[in-house]
Amino acid sequence: MTPEAKLLQMGIELKPVPIGDRPLIPYVRSGNLLFLSGVGPNWGDKTWKGQLGKEYTTEQGYEAARGCALNLLSAAKTALGDLSKVKQVVKVLGMVNSAPGFAEQPQVVNGCSDLLRELFGENGRHARSAVGMAGLPGNIPVEVEMILEVT
Amino acid sequence: MTPEAKLLQMGIELKPVPIGDRPLIPYVRSGNLLFLSGVGPNWGDKTWKGQLGKEYTTEQGYEAARGCALNLLSAAKTALGDLSKVKQVVKVLGMVNSAPGFAEQPQVVNGCSDLLRELFGENGRHARSAVGMAGLPGNIPVEVEMILEVT
Amino acid sequence: MTPEAKLLQMGIELKPVPIGDRPLIPYVRSGNLLFLSGVGPNWGDKTWKGQLGKEYTTEQGYEAARGCALNLLSAAKTALGDLSKVKQVVKVLGMVNSAPGFAEQPQVVNGCSDLLRELFGENGRHARSAVGMAGLPGNIPVEVEMILEVT
Repeated sequence: MTPEAKLLQMGIELKPVPIGDRPLIPYVRSGNLLFLSGVGPNWGDKTWKGQLGKEYTTEQGYEAARGCALNLLSAAKTALGDLSKVKQVVKVLGMVNSAPGFAEQPQVVNGCSDLLRELFGENGRHARSAVGMAGLPGNIPVEVEMILEVT
Repeated sequence: MTPEAKLLQMGIELKPVPIGDRPLIPYVRSGNLLFLSGVGPNWGDKTWKGQLGKEYTTEQGYEAARGCALNLLSAAKTALGDLSKVKQVVKVLGMVNSAPGFAEQPQVVNGCSDLLRELFGENGRHARSAVGMAGLPGNIPVEVEMILEVT
Repeated sequence: MTPEAKLLQMGIELKPVPIGDRPLIPYVRSGNLLFLSGVGPNWGDKTWKGQLGKEYTTEQGYEAARGCALNLLSAAKTALGDLSKVKQVVKVLGMVNSAPGFAEQPQVVNGCSDLLRELFGENGRHARSAVGMAGLPGNIPVEVEMILEVT
C-alpha cells in the first residue's frame, strides 16, 4: 500500500504546497537528497499557539508534531508527485518551543516520527535530534525540518 | 552580472576568511555540497550584542542577519574562489537569540535570505528554518549556517 | 595509529550502539554521508543533568561535550565497523542547554570538536555551529549531532 493510500485510510489527504514568492521555498533537491524547510503544526482547522510546559502538555505537543509531519509530507508530495519516490527518511530536526524546565522534547517529536515510520516502514526510521527552542515563528509549539533520500 | 559585481554595486567587498587553527573550520566540501559553519552578524565596524525582543528590534535583527549573509558569502568565496560556482543555495538555518515571547524569527532571517535571492536569483531561493535560541556565542543576536550546492 | 588505537591509549573503549525499536535510529547513511542522531553526554558511570550557566560551568560543559563525542563515535563505529572509514568530519551541530545569559557555547562544544581533531587529524576539523537551547531531553546539558563523509 502506498503512503498516500495509508493516509487516506486515516482520512487524511495531503495538500499541494505552493512555491510562493518568498526567498525561502518549501524544498530544494540536490542530487538524491530533498531538503525540506521547517514547518509548523497547523493542519486543517486546527491552529496552535503556545509553548510546551506552559500552554501545552506533552500529549498535545505529540499531536502538534504529527501536524508538522503532515505539512512536511505535503511538501514532499508536491516536490516528488508521488511519495513512493521516498527511498529513505534521512534526518529529522524536531524543534520544540519549550518553557523553562520542559525536558520531554523526544516524546513530543515522536508525533512526527511515529507517523513517518507508519507510512514508510523501515525506510521511515531516521536519524533525529529533538530539542528545545526559546521561541518559534508566531509562537507555534513545534517546528520540524527534514531531509529525504529520493529516487 | 556576477554576485561579486552586484555586491560591489552595493559598495560591499567580501573579505577572505582564514582557515585558522581551531578544530572547527569555516567550510567543508563533500561532493557537490559545501557546508558552511554558523557565523555571526559582525561586519565592517558594526558589532552586535544582545537579544531580539530585548536589546534589538526586528528591523535591527534584519540588518544583523544581512551581516551573517555577508560573512557566509565571504567564507563561500574563500572556499570556491568565485561565487558563480554556487549552483544553488540549498539550506539555511537561521538562529535568532530570542528573549521570552519573541516570535518574529522569519522576519529577522529574511535579512539573510533576501540578500541571497538578490545575488543568486532563483538559485538563491532556499529551504530554511528560522528559529529562536536561548543564547548564542558572545550574545550575538543572530547566527546563520548554510549548505550550498557548488560546481 | 587508528582512531580506535588512540582512544585505547586514553583508556577509552567505544561501545556498540543498538538500533533499537524506536522510530528514530542512531544513524542513516545516504551515499557517502553518514547522518548521526543527536546524542547526550552520559558516558560510563557519569550522568549529567542541568544547564550551563546554572548547574554547570563552562569547564564542566566541555567535559560533557566530550562525552557526546564518545557517544557519536560509538554510533559511527557501529555503523561502519571501523572508524578508519571516516574520510572527513563534515558538520557538527553542538546544542548547549543554556540558562539566561550564558554565551560560551563554543567553549563548551570544543570538548567534542577537540577530540574529533585529536582522533582524525586534519580530517577531523569540521564545519560547526555551537548554539544555546532553551531545553534538552531529560535536561542534559549538551546534545551534539554530526554528519560524516565515509568510504
